[in-house]
Amino acid sequence: MINRLARLPGLGRRSAERIALFLLESSAADVEALSTTLGRLRSEVRHCSVCRNISTAEICEVCSSTHRDRTRVCVVEMPHDVSRIEESEAYNGLYHVLLGRLSPELGKGPDDLGLDRLLQRISSDGVAEVIIATNPNVAGDATADYIAGILKGRGVNVTRPGRGLPAGSQIEFLRREALLDAFRNREALE
Amino acid sequence: MINRLARLPGLGRRSAERIALFLLESSAADVEALSTTLGRLRSEVRHCSVCRNISTAEICEVCSSTHRDRTRVCVVEMPHDVSRIEESEAYNGLYHVLLGRLSPELGKGPDDLGLDRLLQRISSDGVAEVIIATNPNVAGDATADYIAGILKGRGVNVTRPGRGLPAGSQIEFLRREALLDAFRNREALE
Repeated sequence: MINRLARLPGLGRRSAERIALFLLESSAADVEALSTTLGRLRSEVRHCSVCRNISTAEICEVCSSTHRDRTRVCVVEMPHDVSRIEESEAYNGLYHVLLGRLSPELGKGPDDLGLDRLLQRISSDGVAEVIIATNPNVAGDATADYIAGILKGRGVNVTRPGRGLPAGSQIEFLRREALLDAFRNREALE
Repeated sequence: MINRLARLPGLGRRSAERIALFLLESSAADVEALSTTLGRLRSEVRHCSVCRNISTAEICEVCSSTHRDRTRVCVVEMPHDVSRIEESEAYNGLYHVLLGRLSPELGKGPDDLGLDRLLQRISSDGVAEVIIATNPNVAGDATADYIAGILKGRGVNVTRPGRGLPAGSQIEFLRREALLDAFRNREALE
């Protein structure tokens, strides 16, 4: 049990041991409930057939909602990026989840990113803007450039979230690249 | 000695003890050199009479340089902000160092920020743009708003460094406010 738990991301051997001992002291019903939930995870959760986000239905809640702006698609690397953006309420359009990024080391190529599905949606669903919100780092930017190249000449605006100083931070602790972006992208102050 | 060292920022009692013991084992000449440097710190380092950054001369190197863009003044809170921006090479203009921020708790008011000197420079030195680069957090933004109000109608463009996703980061770990700024400030991708 400890060996299996220690393989989970973010858990070391010590944490795994602590969890195992905690479960030993828990009621049989609690442990049973956790076990059932784990069993259902793989059988009931799948990827949305439209946007590839995780979903319990064939089409996820965002894709089937009638309250979303269907003219915008935001491309992200992973389901947890959708969670963060949804929590922020910064965006009310649809998504396309790459389930990875271009990465020769990991053997992820263009075919793994579901881009054929994205192109289909663009040509048939009235998409006006694709916001490429891959991570703002080297691998994410390379993936964004590749996707922007594919989308060129297809009649959609291709954008990315703005770069600059992250709200809530201190200049003292920022990287050079963030300062370069921020001074390049100056905003007028009223 | 340990008590005095432990008062320095970033040093706890343990580190202070380690430094004291290290100095005990160092050569008398090394300790003497450190002592002399410390003595010179307060007598030889002052604030530049133009921008208030730390300087060994009456007017600092940036203010007296002939290679800087003298039409721009960047307002920062502290001398270490100047260091970070200079290291980034994101900016080649002049500075005004507030030596603090508006802060009722610390008793820092407008008069402590050297704004009279800044206004003098703007009216007499051909300044075209003031970039208010206070920290992108609540206290920094309040200070920026206050200064922007004072600069209004004085014939200078008032800007701030752009807000958004900091280069080199991951969306997963950013605050809500950074995502809000980033989706608001979208950039076209070619």
